[in-house]
Amino acid sequence: MTASPEQPSVPRIADEVAARLRADAVEREHRGAEPVAEIALLRESGLLRLLVPTEHGGLGGDWPTAHRVITTVGAADASIGHLLGYHYFQLWRIRLFDVPEQQARLERASVEGSWFWAGVSNPRDAALVARPVPGGFAVSGRKFFATGASVADRLIASGTEADTGHKIAFTLDAAAEGIRFLGDWDNLGQRLSASGGVEFTDAFVPEGDVLGVQPAPEEPRAWRDSLSPLGFQLLLSRLHVAIAEGALGEAGRYTAEQSRAWPLSGVEAATDDPYVLAEYGRLDARLAAATLLVDAASRAFEDAEALGTGLTAERRGELGVLISRAKVVSTEVVNEIGTRIFELTGARATSARHGLDRYWRNARTLTLHDPVSYKAREIGRHRLTGELPPVTGYS
Amino acid sequence: MTASPEQPSVPRIADEVAARLRADAVEREHRGAEPVAEIALLRESGLLRLLVPTEHGGLGGDWPTAHRVITTVGAADASIGHLLGYHYFQLWRIRLFDVPEQQARLERASVEGSWFWAGVSNPRDAALVARPVPGGFAVSGRKFFATGASVADRLIASGTEADTGHKIAFTLDAAAEGIRFLGDWDNLGQRLSASGGVEFTDAFVPEGDVLGVQPAPEEPRAWRDSLSPLGFQLLLSRLHVAIAEGALGEAGRYTAEQSRAWPLSGVEAATDDPYVLAEYGRLDARLAAATLLVDAASRAFEDAEALGTGLTAERRGELGVLISRAKVVSTEVVNEIGTRIFELTGARATSARHGLDRYWRNARTLTLHDPVSYKAREIGRHRLTGELPPVTGYS
Amino acid sequence: MTASPEQPSVPRIADEVAARLRADAVEREHRGAEPVAEIALLRESGLLRLLVPTEHGGLGGDWPTAHRVITTVGAADASIGHLLGYHYFQLWRIRLFDVPEQQARLERASVEGSWFWAGVSNPRDAALVARPVPGGFAVSGRKFFATGASVADRLIASGTEADTGHKIAFTLDAAAEGIRFLGDWDNLGQRLSASGGVEFTDAFVPEGDVLGVQPAPEEPRAWRDSLSPLGFQLLLSRLHVAIAEGALGEAGRYTAEQSRAWPLSGVEAATDDPYVLAEYGRLDARLAAATLLVDAASRAFEDAEALGTGLTAERRGELGVLISRAKVVSTEVVNEIGTRIFELTGARATSARHGLDRYWRNARTLTLHDPVSYKAREIGRHRLTGELPPVTGYS
Amino acid sequence: MTASPEQPSVPRIADEVAARLRADAVEREHRGAEPVAEIALLRESGLLRLLVPTEHGGLGGDWPTAHRVITTVGAADASIGHLLGYHYFQLWRIRLFDVPEQQARLERASVEGSWFWAGVSNPRDAALVARPVPGGFAVSGRKFFATGASVADRLIASGTEADTGHKIAFTLDAAAEGIRFLGDWDNLGQRLSASGGVEFTDAFVPEGDVLGVQPAPEEPRAWRDSLSPLGFQLLLSRLHVAIAEGALGEAGRYTAEQSRAWPLSGVEAATDDPYVLAEYGRLDARLAAATLLVDAASRAFEDAEALGTGLTAERRGELGVLISRAKVVSTEVVNEIGTRIFELTGARATSARHGLDRYWRNARTLTLHDPVSYKAREIGRHRLTGELPPVTGYS
Repeated sequence: MTASPEQPSVPRIADEVAARLRADAVEREHRGAEPVAEIALLRESGLLRLLVPTEHGGLGGDWPTAHRVITTVGAADASIGHLLGYHYFQLWRIRLFDVPEQQARLERASVEGSWFWAGVSNPRDAALVARPVPGGFAVSGRKFFATGASVADRLIASGTEADTGHKIAFTLDAAAEGIRFLGDWDNLGQRLSASGGVEFTDAFVPEGDVLGVQPAPEEPRAWRDSLSPLGFQLLLSRLHVAIAEGALGEAGRYTAEQSRAWPLSGVEAATDDPYVLAEYGRLDARLAAATLLVDAASRAFEDAEALGTGLTAERRGELGVLISRAKVVSTEVVNEIGTRIFELTGARATSARHGLDRYWRNARTLTLHDPVSYKAREIGRHRLTGELPPVTGYS
Repeated sequence: MTASPEQPSVPRIADEVAARLRADAVEREHRGAEPVAEIALLRESGLLRLLVPTEHGGLGGDWPTAHRVITTVGAADASIGHLLGYHYFQLWRIRLFDVPEQQARLERASVEGSWFWAGVSNPRDAALVARPVPGGFAVSGRKFFATGASVADRLIASGTEADTGHKIAFTLDAAAEGIRFLGDWDNLGQRLSASGGVEFTDAFVPEGDVLGVQPAPEEPRAWRDSLSPLGFQLLLSRLHVAIAEGALGEAGRYTAEQSRAWPLSGVEAATDDPYVLAEYGRLDARLAAATLLVDAASRAFEDAEALGTGLTAERRGELGVLISRAKVVSTEVVNEIGTRIFELTGARATSARHGLDRYWRNARTLTLHDPVSYKAREIGRHRLTGELPPVTGYS
Repeated sequence: MTASPEQPSVPRIADEVAARLRADAVEREHRGAEPVAEIALLRESGLLRLLVPTEHGGLGGDWPTAHRVITTVGAADASIGHLLGYHYFQLWRIRLFDVPEQQARLERASVEGSWFWAGVSNPRDAALVARPVPGGFAVSGRKFFATGASVADRLIASGTEADTGHKIAFTLDAAAEGIRFLGDWDNLGQRLSASGGVEFTDAFVPEGDVLGVQPAPEEPRAWRDSLSPLGFQLLLSRLHVAIAEGALGEAGRYTAEQSRAWPLSGVEAATDDPYVLAEYGRLDARLAAATLLVDAASRAFEDAEALGTGLTAERRGELGVLISRAKVVSTEVVNEIGTRIFELTGARATSARHGLDRYWRNARTLTLHDPVSYKAREIGRHRLTGELPPVTGYS
Repeated sequence: MTASPEQPSVPRIADEVAARLRADAVEREHRGAEPVAEIALLRESGLLRLLVPTEHGGLGGDWPTAHRVITTVGAADASIGHLLGYHYFQLWRIRLFDVPEQQARLERASVEGSWFWAGVSNPRDAALVARPVPGGFAVSGRKFFATGASVADRLIASGTEADTGHKIAFTLDAAAEGIRFLGDWDNLGQRLSASGGVEFTDAFVPEGDVLGVQPAPEEPRAWRDSLSPLGFQLLLSRLHVAIAEGALGEAGRYTAEQSRAWPLSGVEAATDDPYVLAEYGRLDARLAAATLLVDAASRAFEDAEALGTGLTAERRGELGVLISRAKVVSTEVVNEIGTRIFELTGARATSARHGLDRYWRNARTLTLHDPVSYKAREIGRHRLTGELPPVTGYS
């Protein structure tokens, strides 16, 4: 499987990857191994280089295309869609630091080495500490929920400079000395997302791998920099609709192929049951609406990024509200679909070998990333008072 | 107020019309007079000619633009948005008959006379009977729920030819002898929509006003002809989101300006109440999603129309499913918003002088046009079996 | 119609009253006159004396019986059920003041004169001021939302003693000089509940009509006194289920007698439509559950009252949580039923002459009395921390 | 631990059993062993004899008491509550056959041997075949979903007499030759309920263990016999509320002890978060309502049973509707609580070691026993037309 820059082939590649993941998704999730083989599949597919500009050897894709790919892959295997989405996101974040040469170097290396990227940045943990040492920094500390880190080639992280108190961002070789993966991810859903913690003990970061200091609010690049939490929230919404799509698709196949008509229904086939049909219809319609909202948000994100440092507080705020809308609606729809599909497939569909519960488990796990009520509050405040969402690690 | 073909002015005109309608919407609804003044307002605005091609003196607007206008007007006054939408729809239906000269004549006359159009076509009543008489037909029968007919200049209707049994469509002068308006519209909502019945007693239709015979299913123009019920369903969905937008907007103003913080809330202003904020946020997000779905349906409708007689069963069917999705989601959202806004505005907002209940009443009335469960069933069947919706008066 | 103390006759009387109210409920509501005739009907029925002990000429009924009567009457006409419930409540409140002689005198007079009672006590308005004058007090001030006051024989109110600052309760002849009814009730629902404001201008309250000073928190009767806001909240919940019962009953008759089967349904009668049947079933089941919760709360209220001054903070608090549960669930169910019945009866049921919208209007108006989210918060806090609801005018 | 007939001790015993089950519920479910130890615990507790009349050595408890016990045990471990409920039900079914001597013998033996009973009776499988052989019958066939059978001492089953076609019921020693347990239960939820299939190959049933022939519809005992599917449905509803109670209780402890306040909430503790509090309140209130409905149904079941063969079609039908109401509401509430608790506990609560997902898994599995839409349909039909539910294996 190879990737060429022509637009049409990317969706096809994504379809192929998805088909391979779907084939043994239940078994792989059951085993719960580290997603090494899956990352290898992504590497071979060429999809990892999608967002890298063509001049650095990438496919030069845009965010909407990336979102399409994440949907396709995530519908087949939500953990792998998650990993892929985060990879795009982390590699893209380098652009926010205005370090064209470093970016070129890292992107080229990334393409050549088929690197898989992950971030280490849970905002609720204490910051890592970066102690200045000759030629760079020695980084120490612990971070939890570092999706993909344990199977990554390269990490992006940030920490507080011990002497200045500045918050700096940097990249690291994931195999560097002083990095230990805690392997403590044992959650209901997103089981193959390798989301365990990472411990850093004087891990060395060469000066040249420092991306820069996080901008002060008054700097021109501050608003652009603040796209980072928004892109992250958008990715979560995208994964929600991908999971919902996967769930509804697989349930539909089950109903059509395996469900039996209920004796009292008066119909011959489950696909003629009035309650089953109308409920599929309602869920399908709600998912279509949610998906359009996520699509609109991903286009708006692309537009905002294109403004570069011209991005204003207002524009950034409006984007934040739109992404929060996508989060609210996609959260509702994926949790609903994840649980309702059982009413549409019937008692025998609860057999563990069908694995239909993984959609609900994945949905529940992902949608709790940060509490959706606070997103709803943010949207409501904007509607009532015009106030824009604050810039935080989650908004 | 005048209209020019430049795109930007149409939204502005719509805004002005909406502002005038909003100013006394509660009082006008309370009086419940025939919407004569409102139709006059639409006439003067120039909006009635929006969809008429420029070569016939119109603004040459497309369906998405018409939908934007309907949203703006319908959010301010759902009945008037309803009348305007139906006007666009009825005048547009002439195109489906491949009668370019008649179309040109009627469109020109429509622009010159600032005609307001209405249809007489409730599928659940017995068909009108068209008895051949010298020079044309004498039409007799009764039709209920003929929105706008009693305030229209021109009607479009259909009937069964007494001798051949063919179903023919035709236009009539609304003031013609033999047409009586029953004035029997007295429903909860859409009170100014002039949706009473019409009785025809040997109303004369000159041969030249017959648009044609409804196509047999095998005729090339049959699929295009079947866009008619879909366009109608799409309009209803558009009105749903318009009503919801109006409701949420007016409720928001009330909360911001008049609601008091609940004593136990611990906050000073209703706009800081956590429950109020989050609920506005949820409703805003759901409405945004529903609106995108209706927008997508209106673009798809425009595309399908552009195919002319090249429209296939498959393409028409997919459009039907998309429009049903819009119907399902917009029905849910407008009924929910219509009732929830009271929890967001508080007990004093139930005072009749605020008229906040009209949104729910309008929503309940419009959303019952045809039962939404059967739309959901249609979507569900398509998802499970690929079956396309049947062509009926409602799908 | 006469009432005897035997239990069986009270429900029958309530049934008769309900039948008479139901017969012209839509017309009466449409006219919107003061509910003078309706109060006369209650007077003649003997139901006004239900809770008065037999030794004072009453029927000696208990709260659960009163609740049954309110349900029956309120299902037929929510405003009149509202008035009747408040009458029971206000007359009962006298007992909380430990003034056996006054109670005996007022109850006897109430039975003899077939008095209808109302309260004047909106907690969100400024307190009335009671200025000491020879032989009693001169009361001044304004109170809004005094349900039933303008059609009452006797009022119960409270005010602040101008010199001492004590809060005293007293009863007044509703026809006394210095009392003016503002006639400003013009809300969506509960239109016949005579819920306008009252203005007092030096209205004279003889010393002998003062019920007493509101107890300080450490007095033994303080907890019993605090049953008052709870009994009030309970009444609201009772009215919610009564309205829901009325709505579902009337909708059911409409569906069975007037609705037509939908053409695409494949069935002959609306009563065979699978969606209509299942939705009636769901609403019926939810209403049954809500009703049992209100029933449980009314039994618990009766038990708490029986404890007299033995009522403890804990016991009062548990009762408050139970009543809040009833409020939360009954609010949900009545608002849902009020709006869903239209989907079950169809488009023609929106005709104003059927008046089916009054259930939703009544529900929306009543359920906004105080925001239900704060009741839910109270229950949640109790579950999580054991904390009991505070004593306020609403809890 | 011993049980005495005094009422008070039974709840205490149930509490102790529940406490022991709760202590290692997550680990036991994770291991997924056959529930042998758990059945031993039930045996030792004395609870297995609860419904056996005192004259046969039992505790002489009634159904409402049994339901209380099932709630307590089922809230701690839904599988074990399930097994216990079915045990009560199967042992009770013997009474329906008017075989007092056999009943006495089996009940005495059951008490002496601390027998655990299970049924083998899935209505959707082909009937077992009972071939007459000297001294009894040889039973053959396969039945799926025979909850508890593989860990039972005694089974109750039914089959078709090969020669007469009569449907007979009988009991068997679960260890008898010719009985094989398929061990094929591997479903999402109720993992410890031992709900695999059973294969009978000429298993011998002595004549004396035949309970009788299923009554013809015209026989006096037919209606009483038809209590069997109702009792079964009622048990499912009871388990729903038990699971919901368990879920809400455990989530509440988690929130109070482990959840952290959300940074943007402005409060110090998760137990002060307004959204968390109100949502707990809503769920608590809905569960209270559902529980009262199940309680009402269990009292009505007890009353219906007491009528013996005096039970009429009408009375049985009303009971059926009531039980369906309980099913509909309890299904909604348990599925909702099972999934919502995660929003109340937060992201870290998705860690597998907390096992909070078992409530949703148990709920989803149990509530699919038979499709709830058909229960709703049944209630709706009764409301609209008075029609009583048909007698089937599920109603």
